Amino acid sequence: MSRIAVIGAGAVGAYYGARLAQAGHEVHFLMRRDYEAVRAHGLEVRSKDGDFRLDAPHVHQSSAEIGPVEWVVCALKATAIEEARALVEPCVDAGTRILILMNGLGLEDRFAAWFGAERIFGGLAFTCINRGEPGVIHHIDYGALAIGHVLDDPAEVATAVDLWQDAPVEVAPAPCLLEARWRKLCWNIPFNGLAVTAGGVTTDVIMHDPDLRAAAVRTMREVVAAGDADLVAHGSEVRLAPTIVEQMMATTDAMAVYRPSTMIDFVEGQPLEVEAIFGEPLRRAEVLGVPVPAIAMLTALMRALDPAGRT
Amino acid sequence: MSRIAVIGAGAVGAYYGARLAQAGHEVHFLMRRDYEAVRAHGLEVRSKDGDFRLDAPHVHQSSAEIGPVEWVVCALKATAIEEARALVEPCVDAGTRILILMNGLGLEDRFAAWFGAERIFGGLAFTCINRGEPGVIHHIDYGALAIGHVLDDPAEVATAVDLWQDAPVEVAPAPCLLEARWRKLCWNIPFNGLAVTAGGVTTDVIMHDPDLRAAAVRTMREVVAAGDADLVAHGSEVRLAPTIVEQMMATTDAMAVYRPSTMIDFVEGQPLEVEAIFGEPLRRAEVLGVPVPAIAMLTALMRALDPAGRT
Repeated sequence: MSRIAVIGAGAVGAYYGARLAQAGHEVHFLMRRDYEAVRAHGLEVRSKDGDFRLDAPHVHQSSAEIGPVEWVVCALKATAIEEARALVEPCVDAGTRILILMNGLGLEDRFAAWFGAERIFGGLAFTCINRGEPGVIHHIDYGALAIGHVLDDPAEVATAVDLWQDAPVEVAPAPCLLEARWRKLCWNIPFNGLAVTAGGVTTDVIMHDPDLRAAAVRTMREVVAAGDADLVAHGSEVRLAPTIVEQMMATTDAMAVYRPSTMIDFVEGQPLEVEAIFGEPLRRAEVLGVPVPAIAMLTALMRALDPAGRT
Repeated sequence: MSRIAVIGAGAVGAYYGARLAQAGHEVHFLMRRDYEAVRAHGLEVRSKDGDFRLDAPHVHQSSAEIGPVEWVVCALKATAIEEARALVEPCVDAGTRILILMNGLGLEDRFAAWFGAERIFGGLAFTCINRGEPGVIHHIDYGALAIGHVLDDPAEVATAVDLWQDAPVEVAPAPCLLEARWRKLCWNIPFNGLAVTAGGVTTDVIMHDPDLRAAAVRTMREVVAAGDADLVAHGSEVRLAPTIVEQMMATTDAMAVYRPSTMIDFVEGQPLEVEAIFGEPLRRAEVLGVPVPAIAMLTALMRALDPAGRT
């Protein structure tokens, strides 16, 4: 059993942290909004796979209180990337591994620069999770995790997957982390983007509106083109699956009515994860000369709509 | 001097109608929102070229009350196109000419089908005009009018331009009405579209934000490509000016802080002129096989953001 720190216990951090605790790990949650509620009443997960509750999880208001751990799961919002180093550092010693469970491209490279690449992993949550009232997480649909290593070291990937062995989460190794990141962007760019720019709508609205649906497909095809070009540029022989657009659309058709995280941030007036999800992929596409007019349009609009300005 | 009916006296109709009245024409305004205010206090134009007021203009609540005229100036919102025939008809007799002073593509064709093509003209207002409190029009910037004939009959165009001879409005003949319509769309599609989808912003915000500005240019280039293809398809030898994008951007840089009409509709929760400004140009581009991803994205978002649904 491992000692684990979950840094940033929003919906994703709290959910996967709770699953690790279910598996018997000693999980320490760094919490802001929900600290008091979870200390008083525990952490409740209302899941399509069955509800459960951690009655007395370890919750903390500072990372120093947690101290060094074997695994850090960093699930901060990408908008908090500049604070991430200071929040993670107190939990890191020589043997600590760090799993970045955040949206967007390029975040692992920041952590690699801060803490050394060999210990940095990226996690991709293909799931629908939202926060409810303080202390309550709604696990709405799906839930699989893909985990890769920033240097694509297969032994390290296996170690990371191993951590989840007894947790009721479907975990797949991502042999190429960059491919996995772009695969997730294939969904996040069109759906987080359109859910916000169409006025704050749920995914089903996009799927049932022929114009928005077509815009989602067009945007996703641009993400595929940009992702494949980025993989080539990084010397990878991996490519995004040729059927990925059809797969993603089918998955989203089958999805419960869902509010993408960025759409929730938008309607709540919170900073949007613009640069990690949109800005960095757009920058890479432009450098690589891949035409991405739909991504560029969405990025421009997301930046304009972001209450935090450029983040 | 001519007897003229202005059908739909929003900002554009009231402003240009007032200019025709200044020139000595007998101008009858069909008014809704401003009827009582204008009857009580007249029609006031606060213009960058000097304020003026019509103390007792002819205002009406029904077209039948106006009866047949020499010229109808139809300045309804494009969203009211289905009501336009009934509103215009009572003012039309054998000799009536009809000037369509509305935004968008394809509207003259509707009027031509209803009343016969030979009497139908299109007017393009390159101007910044907003409504103020009831009975007050703000003329903020520019003001030129281009007028064409739906059959591009030069003698008819000259007759239409002649109507404005004594009015303090710069009126230019549009030898090719289709080119003039696309020229106006070069501005309306990017700027009305981005002003709405970026959250309800003024034109200066678009011009000063490098991303939105780039999106405006990209979108405008698509409009130029679609417009030129549409001109070819209509057998016209006219093309949009090669420098039009640079011209439009320079004009907009020099423009006062401006709220495009669709942006005002958006923030006021009114129906948006989506189909005339976006939908019809997009349809033509798609039929002609012109790639217009930015226009398609804006159209999808505008339809989704339109409080009236598809209009």
